[in-house]
Amino acid sequence: MKARLCLALAGLLLLTTAGATFSVADEGMWTFDNPPLKQLQEKYGFTPTKAWLDHVRLSSVRFNDGGSGSFVSPNGLTITNHHVAFGQLQKLSTAGKDYVKDGFHAKTQAEELKCPDLELNVLLSMENVTSQVQGTVKPGMTEKQALDARNAEKAKIQKESLDKTGLRSDVVTLYAGGEYWLYRYKKYTDVRLVFAPEQQTAFFGGDPDNFTFPRYDLDFALLRVYENGRPGVTKDYLKWNTKGAPDGELVFVSGNPGGTDRGQTIAQLEAARDVIYPERLARFKRELQALRTYAAKGSEQARQSADEIFGLENTVKAYTGEYNGLLDPKLFEKKKKAESDLRAKVQGDPEWRREYGSAWDAIAAATKKEGEVTKLQQNRSISTASGMARFARQIVVYAAEVKKPDAQRLDGYHDSQLDELKFYLLSPAPVYPEYEEALLAWSLQESLDQLGPNDPFIKAVLDGRKPADVAAQVIRGSKMADPAFRKSLVEGGEAGVAASTDPLIALARKVDPFFRETRKMYEESVESVFESAGEKIAKARFAIYGKSIYPDATFTLRLTYGKVQGYPMNGTKAPSKTTFYGLYDRAASFDYKAPFNLTQRFMQRKDRIDLSTPLDFVASLDIIGGNSGSPVINRNGDFVGIIFDGNIESLTGNFDYIEDTNRAVAVHSAAIIEALRKVYDAGSVANELEGK
Amino acid sequence: MKARLCLALAGLLLLTTAGATFSVADEGMWTFDNPPLKQLQEKYGFTPTKAWLDHVRLSSVRFNDGGSGSFVSPNGLTITNHHVAFGQLQKLSTAGKDYVKDGFHAKTQAEELKCPDLELNVLLSMENVTSQVQGTVKPGMTEKQALDARNAEKAKIQKESLDKTGLRSDVVTLYAGGEYWLYRYKKYTDVRLVFAPEQQTAFFGGDPDNFTFPRYDLDFALLRVYENGRPGVTKDYLKWNTKGAPDGELVFVSGNPGGTDRGQTIAQLEAARDVIYPERLARFKRELQALRTYAAKGSEQARQSADEIFGLENTVKAYTGEYNGLLDPKLFEKKKKAESDLRAKVQGDPEWRREYGSAWDAIAAATKKEGEVTKLQQNRSISTASGMARFARQIVVYAAEVKKPDAQRLDGYHDSQLDELKFYLLSPAPVYPEYEEALLAWSLQESLDQLGPNDPFIKAVLDGRKPADVAAQVIRGSKMADPAFRKSLVEGGEAGVAASTDPLIALARKVDPFFRETRKMYEESVESVFESAGEKIAKARFAIYGKSIYPDATFTLRLTYGKVQGYPMNGTKAPSKTTFYGLYDRAASFDYKAPFNLTQRFMQRKDRIDLSTPLDFVASLDIIGGNSGSPVINRNGDFVGIIFDGNIESLTGNFDYIEDTNRAVAVHSAAIIEALRKVYDAGSVANELEGK
Repeated sequence: MKARLCLALAGLLLLTTAGATFSVADEGMWTFDNPPLKQLQEKYGFTPTKAWLDHVRLSSVRFNDGGSGSFVSPNGLTITNHHVAFGQLQKLSTAGKDYVKDGFHAKTQAEELKCPDLELNVLLSMENVTSQVQGTVKPGMTEKQALDARNAEKAKIQKESLDKTGLRSDVVTLYAGGEYWLYRYKKYTDVRLVFAPEQQTAFFGGDPDNFTFPRYDLDFALLRVYENGRPGVTKDYLKWNTKGAPDGELVFVSGNPGGTDRGQTIAQLEAARDVIYPERLARFKRELQALRTYAAKGSEQARQSADEIFGLENTVKAYTGEYNGLLDPKLFEKKKKAESDLRAKVQGDPEWRREYGSAWDAIAAATKKEGEVTKLQQNRSISTASGMARFARQIVVYAAEVKKPDAQRLDGYHDSQLDELKFYLLSPAPVYPEYEEALLAWSLQESLDQLGPNDPFIKAVLDGRKPADVAAQVIRGSKMADPAFRKSLVEGGEAGVAASTDPLIALARKVDPFFRETRKMYEESVESVFESAGEKIAKARFAIYGKSIYPDATFTLRLTYGKVQGYPMNGTKAPSKTTFYGLYDRAASFDYKAPFNLTQRFMQRKDRIDLSTPLDFVASLDIIGGNSGSPVINRNGDFVGIIFDGNIESLTGNFDYIEDTNRAVAVHSAAIIEALRKVYDAGSVANELEGK
Repeated sequence: MKARLCLALAGLLLLTTAGATFSVADEGMWTFDNPPLKQLQEKYGFTPTKAWLDHVRLSSVRFNDGGSGSFVSPNGLTITNHHVAFGQLQKLSTAGKDYVKDGFHAKTQAEELKCPDLELNVLLSMENVTSQVQGTVKPGMTEKQALDARNAEKAKIQKESLDKTGLRSDVVTLYAGGEYWLYRYKKYTDVRLVFAPEQQTAFFGGDPDNFTFPRYDLDFALLRVYENGRPGVTKDYLKWNTKGAPDGELVFVSGNPGGTDRGQTIAQLEAARDVIYPERLARFKRELQALRTYAAKGSEQARQSADEIFGLENTVKAYTGEYNGLLDPKLFEKKKKAESDLRAKVQGDPEWRREYGSAWDAIAAATKKEGEVTKLQQNRSISTASGMARFARQIVVYAAEVKKPDAQRLDGYHDSQLDELKFYLLSPAPVYPEYEEALLAWSLQESLDQLGPNDPFIKAVLDGRKPADVAAQVIRGSKMADPAFRKSLVEGGEAGVAASTDPLIALARKVDPFFRETRKMYEESVESVFESAGEKIAKARFAIYGKSIYPDATFTLRLTYGKVQGYPMNGTKAPSKTTFYGLYDRAASFDYKAPFNLTQRFMQRKDRIDLSTPLDFVASLDIIGGNSGSPVINRNGDFVGIIFDGNIESLTGNFDYIEDTNRAVAVHSAAIIEALRKVYDAGSVANELEGK
């Protein structure tokens, strides 16, 4: 479930959301300033206190490369999914030592391995800055001017907060422009690996079983945050409850859903169905094909590309499910009704009509341009696949932006964002030039195929040469794989970048105008319209429904609630949990053939395990990609499990939550303890979790 | 899967089929005179010899109350499904001794229990009598006269064959009137119960899991045919293969699919979708509600009604699946294309057009009347639910019919059919008057609700009284529960029936004219049209496609083939088999709550079982209700499993076979041996199966 968000961060997820939905059933990804107290009291007779909410929030951890987690001991022990930690496991591995395949277990603290470029965030405070941001927009401004004004104001707020508190400070856009909040985070950048099972155990069933249930995965990993070279003191952590949550129990998830499109207008949904999803899916599949071709070259190539292949398979499956949702006429009918109800109410009030009435048509008009601009953005780029090319592009942009007054810079290059940028640019994680060359060659070929030979970008980049030849020339001649080289460029400023003879930097300089031009096109014709119309629609909703609504997901901390429960499936019932029996059944049912094979350890230690121990479970929790690794919490605030997936029915959750069948899939707390003690001889880790 | 056929025999399944389909993929329920040799050779490189086909046919057994089975030892040992034997198990049980709940195991032959009214058939020969039957129809006859002529000729052929051979002789209508065949059967009426597991083990997962996979059921029972008081000598029997059939292997099923509607015209399918299925489903659900109300009165009432409730739940689930198939626009598109292709070919040839061209419109016209007539037939009847009322009705009809010349009697009352009729009427199986009263009260109320108080049938039967009062009066005053009383009526002839003061007989006499009238309406306006049009369409198909087609199912012996293989399911893959691990997983996943509870025996003996033993498996075999209990056979003719269900995707198989997802579900031969030896201490039974 993670890769969608990774892609969002890489700039591909361009669907902007235009609103919010309001709550029925166990629905909603609620901000911590607006928890669903009424629904919880009415449906479950439970009202979380402020202390409960604060404790849960401060125990929750965001994994900035696209996932969630939580503190599970007072000594900084942090749990997330194996698939969230996958990238770091791969970066820590070498051709001879494969922690992805073999797992990892630090028997002592000294053996804990430092992750090369992992940043974790804990949300310390939230401050409503809506009036400040919206107030910068003056009458008579164009929508692009309004967007620039808001962005400048956001940058200012962030910088002031950073200067004042030293904390990571992000101004977050909620309700598609209806609200702006200043979120301050405590940051951890020294994060060390404590334990990870073998990938085959964490991801048993592979791509076929991904996004499905019943499920038999031990998808967890343990890390530890360090401060000043010592284990972090995490006063707020979730108490481990090995009994888990029984069938029917109220549970919560606190985590960071990456993005949803529930507030989209009908025009946007139709564009998604008819243009955006079909094109994007086709592109993903082509990229996956290229990655598989590379992986087929040998075991080392397979190892290098494993995380990316996993992520892209995950994305293709998720998008396919979402696309199927869009093809469902029932979903559209429901959405159409909600929109026409809202619009009728707006039309029925003269003031609302004047203030908000134009928003839907404005969005519909911008939506028509969105597909075309998005296609240009994707293809007039060298950095949609290759990480080395992305380094080069960002260094070139950085050198130019950092010279400007903070408020005028592109988003991502504000003073308050430079730490994060440099953390990424200077990462010591290994880079594999052969792999990078394959990826760049693919993306250049893709650009050529999509844009044609006469596009100015293609002429500038290829100049009649073949994509593979250009990729070979710039990657083989580049030192971009070396963090020290990148450091020298970052420190060398604009003059250094301008003088660099590195062929990848030269290429990045050449494409920089295209990057800026397409970005400007997007801002002018799409983003600024969406944001100003989004603000109107959000205000209409607030006026009509009050704050009984929640904003679309934005990879910020949210609270969601639901019940441990099965659901109707494939003509019968899916239970609310699985057991270790089921793991052995599914493996034997497929004659132990991959991806249903078991590790030697699990084959040998079968008789030690209490096979009736719960393994995975489902609950009617409203989550989505980015929530991976989120803790499942009971009303006492105990840790009872860890989210790692949604069922296939949940994929339409990007657009709509359907309580009957939408289920989040989690690893049961008992399974983790059983495996640590009986399979992995990791009793001391289990003891730390259980507070023994 | 059995109940549909039970209902067919009870006269409710009135959808007549109008044709045949032709084979692609692993499709087809082939008659043994026309096995799919070409397809088998092309796809699997295997050509069964005549000896192979004869051996398989003579090892196959039809259970006349709606199921299939096979001989599995030279001493008459016969295997079928637990759910096929369910009715006999219930009839052998008493309030104190419940073989359904507790299972049964005859430790010696002397302990084998005689089933009260079970007839098994083995198909000894097949003779094409098409020209004889169709030849009786003379130019100028109305369709009703043609139907009567064919029926008279069929009765004559049957009687001649019975007189000549002493064998049960049925003239079977294939291809909806395209062919007629004389099938001769060896009959076994002394059948004894050898072994049955507990129902909970046979039907683990109950109604929710019914018609689904993955599955964990031990749905088998063992009986033995006797002749002259001694175990039958069954020279042809299937050799048991405990290894079963691995993934990918070619397998066959030889059994008796009850009925399919694949040859129906678009007009018939539309009527099924828009009228017949919705009404029938609603009626089934009302009847089920009545049965459940009765069962809720106490454990003994629950025991009495268990088989009927099981059957009706099964029927509702099957019909729901079939109905969903009808609602699928893709299915209709495919069917429409096939029909328009066929009709275009017919129109393209002057002779074909003249001979066959009118058939589709004739069927469409009759279809319009079908719903109305069917509704009258169902509701102007006292015997759709109560067995005692059915006895009474059949005795009254019998007394009148048996006086007529054989050729003029109603079907079911010909000389060649009287043995079977009497076997049923004189059954010593227990009858529960309280239960019968409840059923009759329900069906009379249903008739009142459907027909209204002014219908002549309602006036005649109720005469202003309440349905429950009428039911109480006629059931409480009747001796129909006593087989000796029924015998006296059967032997007493028309005068005895006329003179009887038994209130149920009196009621049956009163409704007899209604029965005859609605039957005549159906024959005149529906059946005769369907059969004569069906003959035309079949002849058109033969002319165009040759005999590369198979007829719709008719509860006669068919051969089907396929491969052991999983299928795409619910976003992932279903494996081709399950194991005992899975049984324990699913039970524990539902916290051992019914219908996912395990018997004490299975709880206690868990550690004795090799849990990786295959339990159930699926194959791309084209089967349907009535095939329950059919053996799965490998190319060596070995018994490798026993069919007991289809997956949920297979339910559209009534109309169309879709190889990608349509799967038959079978119990694995290894599971039966493992359970007999390790769980049931029935080693001697296992030894007989394994030929040890």
